[in-house]
Amino acid sequence: MLNLMKPVADTEICSLEASIGRVLSSEVISSADLPGFPRAAMDGFAVRSLETRGARPSAPVYLHHFLAVRTGMAVPSDFDAVIMLEDSVRRSDLLEVRTEMRPGRNVSTAGEDIRRGDVAFRKGHRLRPPDLAFLAALGIEDATVFRRPRVAVIPTGGELVRCGARELRPGEAYEVNGLMAQLYVRLWGGLPFRHDIVPDDKMQISQAVESGLHADMVILIGGTSVGERDYAPQVLDDLGELLVHGVRMQPGKPTSFGQVADKPVICLPGYPVAALSALYLFVRPAVKRMAHLPEEQPKKLARLSRKIASKAGYESIVRVALRGEEAEPIMASGAGILSSVARADGYVVVPEELEGLEAGEEVEVNLFE
Amino acid sequence: MLNLMKPVADTEICSLEASIGRVLSSEVISSADLPGFPRAAMDGFAVRSLETRGARPSAPVYLHHFLAVRTGMAVPSDFDAVIMLEDSVRRSDLLEVRTEMRPGRNVSTAGEDIRRGDVAFRKGHRLRPPDLAFLAALGIEDATVFRRPRVAVIPTGGELVRCGARELRPGEAYEVNGLMAQLYVRLWGGLPFRHDIVPDDKMQISQAVESGLHADMVILIGGTSVGERDYAPQVLDDLGELLVHGVRMQPGKPTSFGQVADKPVICLPGYPVAALSALYLFVRPAVKRMAHLPEEQPKKLARLSRKIASKAGYESIVRVALRGEEAEPIMASGAGILSSVARADGYVVVPEELEGLEAGEEVEVNLFE
Repeated sequence: MLNLMKPVADTEICSLEASIGRVLSSEVISSADLPGFPRAAMDGFAVRSLETRGARPSAPVYLHHFLAVRTGMAVPSDFDAVIMLEDSVRRSDLLEVRTEMRPGRNVSTAGEDIRRGDVAFRKGHRLRPPDLAFLAALGIEDATVFRRPRVAVIPTGGELVRCGARELRPGEAYEVNGLMAQLYVRLWGGLPFRHDIVPDDKMQISQAVESGLHADMVILIGGTSVGERDYAPQVLDDLGELLVHGVRMQPGKPTSFGQVADKPVICLPGYPVAALSALYLFVRPAVKRMAHLPEEQPKKLARLSRKIASKAGYESIVRVALRGEEAEPIMASGAGILSSVARADGYVVVPEELEGLEAGEEVEVNLFE
Repeated sequence: MLNLMKPVADTEICSLEASIGRVLSSEVISSADLPGFPRAAMDGFAVRSLETRGARPSAPVYLHHFLAVRTGMAVPSDFDAVIMLEDSVRRSDLLEVRTEMRPGRNVSTAGEDIRRGDVAFRKGHRLRPPDLAFLAALGIEDATVFRRPRVAVIPTGGELVRCGARELRPGEAYEVNGLMAQLYVRLWGGLPFRHDIVPDDKMQISQAVESGLHADMVILIGGTSVGERDYAPQVLDDLGELLVHGVRMQPGKPTSFGQVADKPVICLPGYPVAALSALYLFVRPAVKRMAHLPEEQPKKLARLSRKIASKAGYESIVRVALRGEEAEPIMASGAGILSSVARADGYVVVPEELEGLEAGEEVEVNLFE
């Protein structure tokens, strides 16, 4: 699947403030020396090192030519060292120096941080606040970064009602997966576009998918199973290619994947906990790949407080709550139980060849962001 | 210092989309059962379990009364189980059932996820996408969260020029610490207000600090050392109380701290790498505390590729680059060298009682966000 996720090649120009977390689309070369002049690395007095020769506490040297400087201030070219306040005493227009200074002492040379023409950042660098500060120091006001991958999020289901639109009637539920997918896509570096709820109608789902092809990726939620009214896989098959229909993962088995007009389409199951598993296992690496971001996920090692049972042949995604160094599996009967996620700090993956994990085993907890 | 950082008590109401990462200021009670009705946990047929008694493949039972249901659909009250498609065959108006069903089989009861009156979230819960989905499922359209701590960021320094405003003259530098502080404050859960650059003038710095008291915290940058023109500590002393002037940390020694009109004021050194250290060691926990967020920082264990030398009596903040499992110390002569941070993935803290760390030692790398 990941091989079909093409990192976005388009670029855009953002102000430094708006560039946080974004990825540079080309290297940045410094157009100037930084600092642009020799500067004082200490508060003190700029002196000529030659004139301090032999100075020591018992035999100080007295200078006529010196300049009070503060840290960061330019050191004029006729001086080559800065003597600390502690090692000198100003006596009206004379400076008493009690220690010999080496040339360059306490002076930062021009270009010490970076020289004109040197590479400040390589292509693909993710911009953090100190990086943006460095760009500002170079006098650069905006950054050329990769455009964020656009992701169309399409929730489907005749029983769904937009949250807050009205009271629910029996058999109805508020739409939640679209919101969850939208928020995660944004968190993972994508730009989500949430479509209105689409009823269980093959034609309308087809139209929604086609309208989503303006994006770089489509996430179609619900109707991914094998029932006659599970239109998502059929729509993929009709409009393009259904590459995977169902995965050996629990929850999240109906997760499917295909391609329409060269755009990847990921189908998420309608049950929220299954959708969450599929978001983490499939959508996260997909969006990160397209956004030129590392896939690495925040993790924490912990020991299982209780055993986990799982079905062999399925990779099991088990929610856990962290209690100090222990990970407590959250037992919840179904993939529809969102309250179980509210109590979870992350999830543990039980490999498909195992039938569970024992209490006390060390596990890697993937933290929910 | 942290004891003076009062978590913000004010609250505000945010849409679910805008509530990501925010902290609930009160518990959330469910006003309804979720689901609000018994629902099918499988695609199949709703049946009366009583009527399936004794059914087995060799002796199927035929039902007149059944209803085709899809996962998540309401199961009407005259049915109490759902039989999977695989265990039944529809024969025109009869359903052939080959397995006995227990009452409640494949039916999620009303209130299975959460019951009316139960606590959905406790006060202080940080809202992640699945939490917001859970709120949406309960029909809740917005969240009452703690207001973000307002942080006034005041850069000072006569040599500073706003990035991009004009070419630098000798002795000048573009202002970068204000931008860095602003971006980190936002990342750490605060709401930054960046003041224009203030020259090295005691009166103007005083006025800027006073104008910053609309915020919950003030960050004053530059002029924190012991020179006669280092006004930050003097201003704190005049307007309020200077509690700490200098810390045993390297870089970042001039970091100071005080209180004006009951508002904490943190003074950061003007050298960018020193400012960065102080941001991580002091501002981060302060903002997180005020924002009701955990202080825990992303970390990674690694082995030092080379020894680190440090000054005993000072806690040393050493930038490192990660190369696989190894942490490579970045040797840079001064606290002004921002290019060294561009190459760094995080920092290692060498405790003040040590004079360094040996190559091969395992260290905890605090990752730069």
